[in-house]
Amino acid sequence: MVRKFSSVFLIGKFQSEDGTETVLDLARFLRERGIEPWIEQGTAGGIGKAADDFVTATYEEIADKVNLAVVVGGDGTLLNAARRLGERAVPLVGVNLGRLGFLTDLARADARQQLGEILDGRYHAESRFMLDAEVTRGGSRIFRTLALNDVVVNRGKLGRMIELELMVDNEFVYNLRSDGMIVATPTGSTAYALAANGPILHPGVGGIALVPLCPQALTARPITLPDTCRIELVIMPPHDARIHFDGVTYCDVRAGDQLRIVRSALELRLLHPEGYGYFAMLREKLHWSAAVLRP
Amino acid sequence: MVRKFSSVFLIGKFQSEDGTETVLDLARFLRERGIEPWIEQGTAGGIGKAADDFVTATYEEIADKVNLAVVVGGDGTLLNAARRLGERAVPLVGVNLGRLGFLTDLARADARQQLGEILDGRYHAESRFMLDAEVTRGGSRIFRTLALNDVVVNRGKLGRMIELELMVDNEFVYNLRSDGMIVATPTGSTAYALAANGPILHPGVGGIALVPLCPQALTARPITLPDTCRIELVIMPPHDARIHFDGVTYCDVRAGDQLRIVRSALELRLLHPEGYGYFAMLREKLHWSAAVLRP
Amino acid sequence: MVRKFSSVFLIGKFQSEDGTETVLDLARFLRERGIEPWIEQGTAGGIGKAADDFVTATYEEIADKVNLAVVVGGDGTLLNAARRLGERAVPLVGVNLGRLGFLTDLARADARQQLGEILDGRYHAESRFMLDAEVTRGGSRIFRTLALNDVVVNRGKLGRMIELELMVDNEFVYNLRSDGMIVATPTGSTAYALAANGPILHPGVGGIALVPLCPQALTARPITLPDTCRIELVIMPPHDARIHFDGVTYCDVRAGDQLRIVRSALELRLLHPEGYGYFAMLREKLHWSAAVLRP
Amino acid sequence: MVRKFSSVFLIGKFQSEDGTETVLDLARFLRERGIEPWIEQGTAGGIGKAADDFVTATYEEIADKVNLAVVVGGDGTLLNAARRLGERAVPLVGVNLGRLGFLTDLARADARQQLGEILDGRYHAESRFMLDAEVTRGGSRIFRTLALNDVVVNRGKLGRMIELELMVDNEFVYNLRSDGMIVATPTGSTAYALAANGPILHPGVGGIALVPLCPQALTARPITLPDTCRIELVIMPPHDARIHFDGVTYCDVRAGDQLRIVRSALELRLLHPEGYGYFAMLREKLHWSAAVLRP
Repeated sequence: MVRKFSSVFLIGKFQSEDGTETVLDLARFLRERGIEPWIEQGTAGGIGKAADDFVTATYEEIADKVNLAVVVGGDGTLLNAARRLGERAVPLVGVNLGRLGFLTDLARADARQQLGEILDGRYHAESRFMLDAEVTRGGSRIFRTLALNDVVVNRGKLGRMIELELMVDNEFVYNLRSDGMIVATPTGSTAYALAANGPILHPGVGGIALVPLCPQALTARPITLPDTCRIELVIMPPHDARIHFDGVTYCDVRAGDQLRIVRSALELRLLHPEGYGYFAMLREKLHWSAAVLRP
Repeated sequence: MVRKFSSVFLIGKFQSEDGTETVLDLARFLRERGIEPWIEQGTAGGIGKAADDFVTATYEEIADKVNLAVVVGGDGTLLNAARRLGERAVPLVGVNLGRLGFLTDLARADARQQLGEILDGRYHAESRFMLDAEVTRGGSRIFRTLALNDVVVNRGKLGRMIELELMVDNEFVYNLRSDGMIVATPTGSTAYALAANGPILHPGVGGIALVPLCPQALTARPITLPDTCRIELVIMPPHDARIHFDGVTYCDVRAGDQLRIVRSALELRLLHPEGYGYFAMLREKLHWSAAVLRP
Repeated sequence: MVRKFSSVFLIGKFQSEDGTETVLDLARFLRERGIEPWIEQGTAGGIGKAADDFVTATYEEIADKVNLAVVVGGDGTLLNAARRLGERAVPLVGVNLGRLGFLTDLARADARQQLGEILDGRYHAESRFMLDAEVTRGGSRIFRTLALNDVVVNRGKLGRMIELELMVDNEFVYNLRSDGMIVATPTGSTAYALAANGPILHPGVGGIALVPLCPQALTARPITLPDTCRIELVIMPPHDARIHFDGVTYCDVRAGDQLRIVRSALELRLLHPEGYGYFAMLREKLHWSAAVLRP
Repeated sequence: MVRKFSSVFLIGKFQSEDGTETVLDLARFLRERGIEPWIEQGTAGGIGKAADDFVTATYEEIADKVNLAVVVGGDGTLLNAARRLGERAVPLVGVNLGRLGFLTDLARADARQQLGEILDGRYHAESRFMLDAEVTRGGSRIFRTLALNDVVVNRGKLGRMIELELMVDNEFVYNLRSDGMIVATPTGSTAYALAANGPILHPGVGGIALVPLCPQALTARPITLPDTCRIELVIMPPHDARIHFDGVTYCDVRAGDQLRIVRSALELRLLHPEGYGYFAMLREKLHWSAAVLRP
């Protein structure tokens, strides 16, 4: 029988003592199970001397050497790891240090046991699509990145409103005066977009949500587009703007710059403990009612 | 060359004098073009003696004898026709008597000319999926129908709130206390669901929107599910409810009854005049801004 | 020293066994304290033989004979009692049988102790204004009542939409096509109106909220009017409607009927246990965050 | 008979050619009517040589020398003038250069005629209250200003979320994680707050609206407080923030800084042409339906 997860990459939350401890603990646990862990270099730096027992590696070095990544932190830590691992087909498991997240659904206290079960092949795997976003200026690309949750165009440093022109598959949609616009995947639909009154999209929906932020026109309601669309937002004069990607990196843009977003060919593979259910997770996070006896 | 639309079914708005006149005018126009029109029987009844010149037929009789249906009225008239023609693969064209609708996009004044163009093969064809809804009581089906826009579970005659249990693909989602629930197709997402704060779904999205009506829990936000899901709503005691289908027919239900909704295998084929664009239509209907000069 | 609360009216939730027990227990507690309780006649009927030990009275008989009313049930029970006691200046205390309500804030387990403190003069008193609503047909009044929470105009038995004309102080505001309209006091702003996306109004605001239900026009947003306004809603043809008052009574109306709402000269006086705070109550009910350490 | 408006202050939109022309035209019109106009110094600077015919003055110099101010521009220009004239009891008239605003309701084309009518005493006067806002750091005031529309606490330059602690009359309300918070007067309730899903407050309501911007907690709904309240927002670590006043001035703040807002004792007096109605204005601006024939 082929060993499924023979080498595991461990990534901890940046500058988190709790994360550091949990990473070390899981590294020891993996070694006990006969699996050699690789600790992400930045994470290892935060651990200090105790990390010397283990091999460390950068995201770049890890290349195709690992077949599982365990992220210890919150949803933000996982988003960052997902973007950086994007081009590698490494599945991710998320261990949460606090309350369970939308993406990180192993509790720290159960991490050893649940990771053990996953290593034994008992897990629920799920694919999440990502956005491929690029910014061009005068025809040249000035920025490109992946986003698992969302791409957010926001007001820049000055003023209270920006103007965007939206094109979908080269068809003009509208000119939007607002605080900005969120372009979200189903995964991102329960993050920032939800706070902006956007719709929840089940991860199985092949759709991308456009959610305006405080639009001047009250009829500028959220729209969900097919994930086969090419979305283009042009920053209109006279305002500057800032574009955020998953809330972890950003790019400053100015009038005339164009943001183009398509569904990436890459997908993130998330592993959940057995028994995971999308609706159970939503119910927990959104405090929905539990089941009652059937009539 | 094969004649594309050799026989055309004409349907008018119920008890509308304007509709009646337009139907007659289009019947004459079709005959001038050498196409024999069939007038829907109820419509013919409203026309009176002038209809005697033309063949009349019921929805049932028309079966596979026509290859185009022209509906004269508003979106409501077209919804009704779509449901009744559902099992036949007849494409529809909508002529609006008032302001253009989301679905009926030929203006009465231009109807002869634009219908002429469509008969000449110059049109934009589009598929819209429908919902297949059935209500069961004690395991037996008591109602079944198609819906192009939405299925709406509402409070019954008494009380101000009902309780529903939502299951998706046999997974429990939540117990909802509310005024009701809208289950909408992308086509219906710009109808009643929009008034209830639901998301706009582009017709190309394979999704079904669940939009709670005045939910008691503020976190019961609209959700879009994949159109491959099997949606089940159970009416919980002690309240009765009424289920509306496209706002044109309904079914009274009581505690314990189950509503099951799946995407129908049938699709509606809508023909639009050339130059039709989904976003242009939305822009018109929702008073969105027009294009401005690019920076 | 004058005894503040010399005679107390006890009202229980209709057909509730739990309510019955608590009413009896509080009746005994009052007698122990030397205060003669009066039990509301309907409540006494539900109690049965054990009620024979106590004096019973109808809302009408009680007139000015009591100087405190204790309501045992939920917010709905208190709303009903408030309307029926409306013209008497009797302050109310609410004992909740389940989770604390917005209005009923004595827990059953603490009811003896907290009621004791209130009888000792340790309480927080608060006034809530009520709406005086009347319905006229052809110039004659056909219905009139008080409402503490809200007056709701709803679709009648048929159809999915009604049309209302809104006049404020005889000035035309708009013609609304919707599922209906909620007219809410600050007290009602955290009840049904909140589920319909209405604003929370602090009880100290002299305002009345108008909250459209699923309005066809997306710009028909909730409006708060001064409580000195005279609000008039006319049911427009062709639809019938039903008007609900506090969700406990209703009146069926038809096209042409007029609903007129003003602030009543009567106020409800609510007594809360000491330590009650409006924001603490909201925080509890809406699951808002608790305080954290100041920076 | 005492001449009501004997001296008039003319203020034009900053760097607007259209505004400049209209100001000059109105200055000539006033002189024709025997009223000496004063042109605001910055406005005069934009006019150039043609302004030499008229007296110019700064906001400070004008003191109590004028008894009417005419603002030519949009709502933003009027907001700025209102703040700067705040402590003087000078009534304002707004002339709009484009589409009519919520506050500037004389069209440029009708400005001579409508201003003439106002000078003749034919107008509708209205008072609007203002907010008095101050920012303190370590107990010392670092900023203070008036706002007619709103005070907006926003994310600072970095990050996507800030944390605020809200106290009302020294009572803790909640800790809010969001993009920020709008504190709006009734006048401001139809401006930025409306885009953020806030309630419309009629100018006669003595209330202040608190409207969270993209709150993380879905139950953090807009609240309207009595205008007698003292509102305090504390910037919580670790984030910085920026506070905007009427969108025309701002103040950068950091963790621990406190923003205190009360209703100002000062009121703005707005003069409208006769026939002005608040609801008619809303109807126009929000595209509400016109009246139909009564049933």
